[in-house]
Amino acid sequence: MGKLTLQREDNIATVTLSNPGKLNALDIAMWRELTTTFQTLSQDESLRCVIIRGKNGNFAAGADIAEFKAQRADAVQGITYHVDIIAPALDAIGNSLHPTIAAIEGVCVGGGLEIACACDLRIAAPDSRFGIPIKRLGFALAPTEMQDLLQLAGLATTLEILLEGRVFNADEAMRKGLLHRIAGDVHAEARQAAKRIAEGAPQAARMNKKLARRLSPRPNALTRQELLDAYALLDSQDYHEGVDAFIHNRPPVFAGK
Amino acid sequence: MGKLTLQREDNIATVTLSNPGKLNALDIAMWRELTTTFQTLSQDESLRCVIIRGKNGNFAAGADIAEFKAQRADAVQGITYHVDIIAPALDAIGNSLHPTIAAIEGVCVGGGLEIACACDLRIAAPDSRFGIPIKRLGFALAPTEMQDLLQLAGLATTLEILLEGRVFNADEAMRKGLLHRIAGDVHAEARQAAKRIAEGAPQAARMNKKLARRLSPRPNALTRQELLDAYALLDSQDYHEGVDAFIHNRPPVFAGK
Amino acid sequence: MGKLTLQREDNIATVTLSNPGKLNALDIAMWRELTTTFQTLSQDESLRCVIIRGKNGNFAAGADIAEFKAQRADAVQGITYHVDIIAPALDAIGNSLHPTIAAIEGVCVGGGLEIACACDLRIAAPDSRFGIPIKRLGFALAPTEMQDLLQLAGLATTLEILLEGRVFNADEAMRKGLLHRIAGDVHAEARQAAKRIAEGAPQAARMNKKLARRLSPRPNALTRQELLDAYALLDSQDYHEGVDAFIHNRPPVFAGK
Repeated sequence: MGKLTLQREDNIATVTLSNPGKLNALDIAMWRELTTTFQTLSQDESLRCVIIRGKNGNFAAGADIAEFKAQRADAVQGITYHVDIIAPALDAIGNSLHPTIAAIEGVCVGGGLEIACACDLRIAAPDSRFGIPIKRLGFALAPTEMQDLLQLAGLATTLEILLEGRVFNADEAMRKGLLHRIAGDVHAEARQAAKRIAEGAPQAARMNKKLARRLSPRPNALTRQELLDAYALLDSQDYHEGVDAFIHNRPPVFAGK
Repeated sequence: MGKLTLQREDNIATVTLSNPGKLNALDIAMWRELTTTFQTLSQDESLRCVIIRGKNGNFAAGADIAEFKAQRADAVQGITYHVDIIAPALDAIGNSLHPTIAAIEGVCVGGGLEIACACDLRIAAPDSRFGIPIKRLGFALAPTEMQDLLQLAGLATTLEILLEGRVFNADEAMRKGLLHRIAGDVHAEARQAAKRIAEGAPQAARMNKKLARRLSPRPNALTRQELLDAYALLDSQDYHEGVDAFIHNRPPVFAGK
Repeated sequence: MGKLTLQREDNIATVTLSNPGKLNALDIAMWRELTTTFQTLSQDESLRCVIIRGKNGNFAAGADIAEFKAQRADAVQGITYHVDIIAPALDAIGNSLHPTIAAIEGVCVGGGLEIACACDLRIAAPDSRFGIPIKRLGFALAPTEMQDLLQLAGLATTLEILLEGRVFNADEAMRKGLLHRIAGDVHAEARQAAKRIAEGAPQAARMNKKLARRLSPRPNALTRQELLDAYALLDSQDYHEGVDAFIHNRPPVFAGK
């Protein structure tokens, strides 16, 4: 089981994602810990900035697929998983009182990329890798998560990432507008950026952050039926084939139903 | 008169625009054929991806201006031309059940660029050329078509393309966010991209595409009066001067009325 | 006290910002002169394009902070300053009948960057410098001004500019989508761009400009309470510390209240 660790140096907190042997993939317990950790940090007005990173050279590999057969086996479980577990975690980061910085190295895909995209700044190592290769798993990106990607990356890049399902490098992520900068020593640069933020007036930083998110046009809301249709894929044969193929490390064979 | 041809290889369809001697400029019959072709392809669930390209080294040079004197001579005809003929064609591509790829080489301007922008992916040859040089013809971009350009390229790039009216190269189109990538062998790369899409679960691809377009904020709707005002330019002296100058291959002289 | 000068060559007008010894920082009189100048230019249908530039090698350094202690000392004055003085000036530029080009060299920060962002095209010299370093002054960007930045640069870049408060060069501004191009001779290139615009049909240019701005999704509107909250920072201790430190050229010490 994975876990989060929390460190503090002066007025800067660092949250580290850790799930050894799984490239820090996020299990349900970690998503819940993300929610409570960022909610708690938002109540500490002595802080100026929060950095989020992964342990041992990777940011995070996304959701822990091993849990899907038991915890995300159909449309009903899917809604719980995305609306009640993942969305609150991403919202807790996005609505953090303090400015947030993702310090990215190694693998940053799927849910890992979503966590990075919920932060205010994204700084990445030159050899980091990005993508949302869920086409192989047979499901579409959850609407709550697609909204954030659309707001950050726009329609053209969102379609490319999801339809082709490629894993791409930091230069391409930078060109696609997913990153703010690439740095050889990503953790040193994240600390420098955090210090630049901490030098400013904290109330001004919090208001800038709040206003920028509040004023940005939000994606269209779905009807209840559209929401149910989006999750109905988790009742399909192809979804179960995709997850089974992933777990057994074999290519999936999709029937289109 | 131009025409469309349709080929199929495995589960990938290719639509080819052809209007010899006119750089594949689209006449009214071709716009109508685009609508019916993409509507028909969307009903074939055995398909996985549709590629659209032009014949003989060019994508498409836009609308066939030779038709304008008879078919688009005033504001009333203009509304029919754009709202009843072009908009349904671009919508049929944009709402295609299947992911779509524009494989672009040579000239891709005006309506040709609009067709490319309605696709999900845009892959271009290094020597392809882009722009919407309608300032010389004396009319503004139709509102239905401007919405799509704004959604893809944003306000700053839309204003630059329309106000300066320059024709620019693939590198600049890439920097402006109009392209996903530039490829030496554009048709080989389009096939590779189509295969990457076809490898994924088809229902997931269709849902990703549908959700991304559905969730994206739409441009503001115009009032009826604003719509009429936009087309009123087709009753102006400058519009008829622009079309006449284009057809007789001479520089237009605009009076500002 | 600064001033604006207005020149005209053929059908192209040039507005020059000038405040000697202050890097053309804009005092209240200059903001008001911007409003009336652009409103007057919009009534002259013989014009085709307006260029805006700064005098003596700089575009503009933002608002004139020396006025803040008397003219922008609390939340009530802040609303007057931003809603009644700055917003009309930026709107007069943004809604100009004629296409507008910012010709940028040297310093282009704060209010100077806002003026540039209200123009249709932005062309910059290679050594120009950009940013909104108000974190040192202890206030957040006014909501009316943040809307324009969000519409142009998007959420990710807006957050970076405001939270880090860095001053960055033309290459970075170009990558962030703040510029249309970088030119060694910025004034020659601005004239060329103005001539390209002036060659087109003027009514088409005006309609393209009007439609593109009208159709673009606007940021969310704030409630009255949110607006008051945004300006409440001007009643804080940190704001007065920031302005005082700036005026006396010393580092500010922020207490977070």
